[in-house]
Amino acid sequence: MEKTRTFVAREDSQAPYFVGIDLGGTNIKVGVVDDQGRPMSWLSVKTQAVNGPEDASRRMGQAVKDAIAQAGLEPADVARVGLGSPGTMDIPAGMLIRPVNLKGWDHFPIRDRVSHHCGLPVAFANDAGAAAYGEYWVGAGRELHSMVLLTLGTGIGCGIIIGDLSIDGENSHGAECGHTIIDCSENARVCGCGQPGHLEAYASATAVAKRTHEALESGRESSLSAHLTNGAKLTPKLVAEQAESGDELSLEIVMDTARYLGVGIVSLLHTIDPNGVLLAGAMTFGGRDSALGRRFLERIKEEIDRRAFALLAERIVLDFATLGEDAGFIGAAGIARVEHLAGR
Amino acid sequence: MEKTRTFVAREDSQAPYFVGIDLGGTNIKVGVVDDQGRPMSWLSVKTQAVNGPEDASRRMGQAVKDAIAQAGLEPADVARVGLGSPGTMDIPAGMLIRPVNLKGWDHFPIRDRVSHHCGLPVAFANDAGAAAYGEYWVGAGRELHSMVLLTLGTGIGCGIIIGDLSIDGENSHGAECGHTIIDCSENARVCGCGQPGHLEAYASATAVAKRTHEALESGRESSLSAHLTNGAKLTPKLVAEQAESGDELSLEIVMDTARYLGVGIVSLLHTIDPNGVLLAGAMTFGGRDSALGRRFLERIKEEIDRRAFALLAERIVLDFATLGEDAGFIGAAGIARVEHLAGR
Repeated sequence: MEKTRTFVAREDSQAPYFVGIDLGGTNIKVGVVDDQGRPMSWLSVKTQAVNGPEDASRRMGQAVKDAIAQAGLEPADVARVGLGSPGTMDIPAGMLIRPVNLKGWDHFPIRDRVSHHCGLPVAFANDAGAAAYGEYWVGAGRELHSMVLLTLGTGIGCGIIIGDLSIDGENSHGAECGHTIIDCSENARVCGCGQPGHLEAYASATAVAKRTHEALESGRESSLSAHLTNGAKLTPKLVAEQAESGDELSLEIVMDTARYLGVGIVSLLHTIDPNGVLLAGAMTFGGRDSALGRRFLERIKEEIDRRAFALLAERIVLDFATLGEDAGFIGAAGIARVEHLAGR
Repeated sequence: MEKTRTFVAREDSQAPYFVGIDLGGTNIKVGVVDDQGRPMSWLSVKTQAVNGPEDASRRMGQAVKDAIAQAGLEPADVARVGLGSPGTMDIPAGMLIRPVNLKGWDHFPIRDRVSHHCGLPVAFANDAGAAAYGEYWVGAGRELHSMVLLTLGTGIGCGIIIGDLSIDGENSHGAECGHTIIDCSENARVCGCGQPGHLEAYASATAVAKRTHEALESGRESSLSAHLTNGAKLTPKLVAEQAESGDELSLEIVMDTARYLGVGIVSLLHTIDPNGVLLAGAMTFGGRDSALGRRFLERIKEEIDRRAFALLAERIVLDFATLGEDAGFIGAAGIARVEHLAGR
């Protein structure tokens, strides 16, 4: 247990309460929220994936109990626990199938094992879907009826919410929008998943580093070169810093990233026509608090204006997410709440 | 009233009954179905769009009454009428906004006017969504929990159904998958809607004619040339005939169309992960009854196998739709039934 935080005194909240678990490859975040989605307490434990899923399930069960106690509650005050997990998975079965970031956890009935260890019913969800639900419930999407959350990092994660329903797909593979095809030509870039032309191959952090590297290799002048010579690593953060310092290539890389994201978002708008699209993750170039972040968002909107049906371009809410790393556990708790209220 | 058909005797059916209206730019099809989606009667009247929406609403109201009488029923036997209409539209408001194929029908409250003229409550739906619902309810999608219907014609229509829910979108612009972007490069083909890189610009009937024309202009040898010199029109039907007669270019055009469709379908699979994708419309190259149609379908599947996550490629049901032009009115009736059962 490394970190701890308490937001809302118990007196301010309505029963029942819900617990959310955000299971990641490195850390597990567990938090209690009230019926309004307000966090009461949270804590973080190491995943220690190498020790296997049963050990982690046991520690998740303990962390749920600890978080409940930390919020000044009893287990009986909690209606349900939500567990957001990376895929691949079988959501209705409560099973991990072959989670890429949890080596050796294949075909593990994680929902029931966590439930066993915490003594509470558990709702199972995809981590990206849980984060999207969190933003939808109490974050930047709280005024929206439907929305897409794109999480920009090493890859591009995606969650789609339509009116309280997370679009998980028939095989728990829904909302993998990082793997929609934006370029079907023969010379398309190849995605980390091995297939050509995916959005993620153009607009993830990995893709930003790769495109920048290629531009430098082709002889483009840039203030990046000196930093790389001095041993700096080519990351979106470095590109952003140089763009902010006036480096032309770096700015071009950021704006091209926005353009590709705009293309991918237009296909989403023309498929499901949501109220809003929110951007989260490590690669938002500073977000709304930064001039570069705002310019990045504006460039995405320009591409949407250029390519989407006019009515949709006019009405779409495009913004940064606001919950940061809390979105996952809050959303997992929110999905638990939806299942509880629906009596599922 | 030009055409008439009766399928099922009243004795075979369960009350209540539903009426579906499929409103097109040229014809309006109206049919009565029972609670199992079996058509009891149908008839077709001319749209006569030039006479305006109030006149057509009056005649739709009369056609509903005629179809009910023709099925041997009374209006009191019908719980609700479903109206599937081309867009643009505002589905919750029951309004046409600016329907491209119904000139001058802008901002018309068609749901309430048809309801007024037939004396029954009316559910309002998008025509492509209604056709998809028809296939989902009683057609090729009847075993599926979620599906996409792609209608290949002058353009590419699309309807998405997820567990009895038609994905209409927040602005009634959902499921416009013909306008997803498959090529974001600068030299992408331009769609009929004016924007670059859309699936429809590659795989609609219009696109097939255009791509064939370009190939012939570039000097490709083909048995098509003699037909065109003799005054034949360059249509997908002619291309299909020549492909079946062994013309290499024609076959290549058909297979390239399949390849582009495969790309678009993969983006759909990676966004909503449906159980199935069905193909309908005038440009299915003969469908399942034709060797060329089956080859077309196989080529689409090959592209999906090449580009989609293995599990999704393995599990997706890809097939031709089976209801033909009846899908629209059956599905509109089905959407009326869903709204009736939900008490909306």
